[in-house]
Amino acid sequence: MLRQLLPIALIACAASTSASANLKVDEAIKYRQSAYTFMAWNMGRIRANTEGELSRDEVVKAANAIAAIANSGLGSLFVPGSDQGKGWIETRAKSEIFTDGAGVGKVAMRFNQEANAMAAIAGTGDAAALKAQLGKLGATCKSCHDNYRAKAAE
Amino acid sequence: MLRQLLPIALIACAASTSASANLKVDEAIKYRQSAYTFMAWNMGRIRANTEGELSRDEVVKAANAIAAIANSGLGSLFVPGSDQGKGWIETRAKSEIFTDGAGVGKVAMRFNQEANAMAAIAGTGDAAALKAQLGKLGATCKSCHDNYRAKAAE
Repeated sequence: MLRQLLPIALIACAASTSASANLKVDEAIKYRQSAYTFMAWNMGRIRANTEGELSRDEVVKAANAIAAIANSGLGSLFVPGSDQGKGWIETRAKSEIFTDGAGVGKVAMRFNQEANAMAAIAGTGDAAALKAQLGKLGATCKSCHDNYRAKAAE
Repeated sequence: MLRQLLPIALIACAASTSASANLKVDEAIKYRQSAYTFMAWNMGRIRANTEGELSRDEVVKAANAIAAIANSGLGSLFVPGSDQGKGWIETRAKSEIFTDGAGVGKVAMRFNQEANAMAAIAGTGDAAALKAQLGKLGATCKSCHDNYRAKAAE
């Protein structure tokens, strides 16, 4: 039941936001590429902290940024037709994003859950727990990439 | 006194983060361009909400994203030598960023303060207050651009 409702929620979100409704395809692609790229920096910072000297402050800052971006409503940046277009670079989003609502809703929900779980433990300074949570969070990224992002050109 | 200390804090931050220490110039530029671009989307969403039908939920999401990014330690992305280089595009960062520590510290602190103030009132649904705060926040962006970013090529 939840899985069936999620795509509807995503679509409703995209359609109801006045700012997003006016977004051009290439703008939307640029904004989402920016979001994922900035999150990648923060993932890397958390990883580096679990592998070296750990700064709780930096982990908290990085995890909060990831969670806030994950919770910001990125779904509304997947405007209709944005499986084709150029933001900073050509998008690699597959058309399945716009047809497999149930599957997309599932990975999107997992991504948000794991991002929030990371933010919740960021201040503990427990390197092993942070590393484990980073693995779970990274798995949600990979899951979406495997299914909904075309491979990079060789 | 505070103005003299701030640049030291910024430099210390950049030097002490293990992840940032290994950042290449072009990576750092790409990450910061991503951060500012994603914040621009969220600024636009808040503006649209103050000018049309207001969604408290969307304003909160957007304001939280801006604040978390502002608080994430963007200063560490201004690695030495990154007034020259190409992230998504050629950087327009002026070399003054690396020489005017007191001035940069001041605009950075104001930006963080206004971003946090925006997040604090985001849930009120008070369009006039949100618009006024957006003006204050936008003024900190403009202040930095006017002083530390080269004009776009015609």
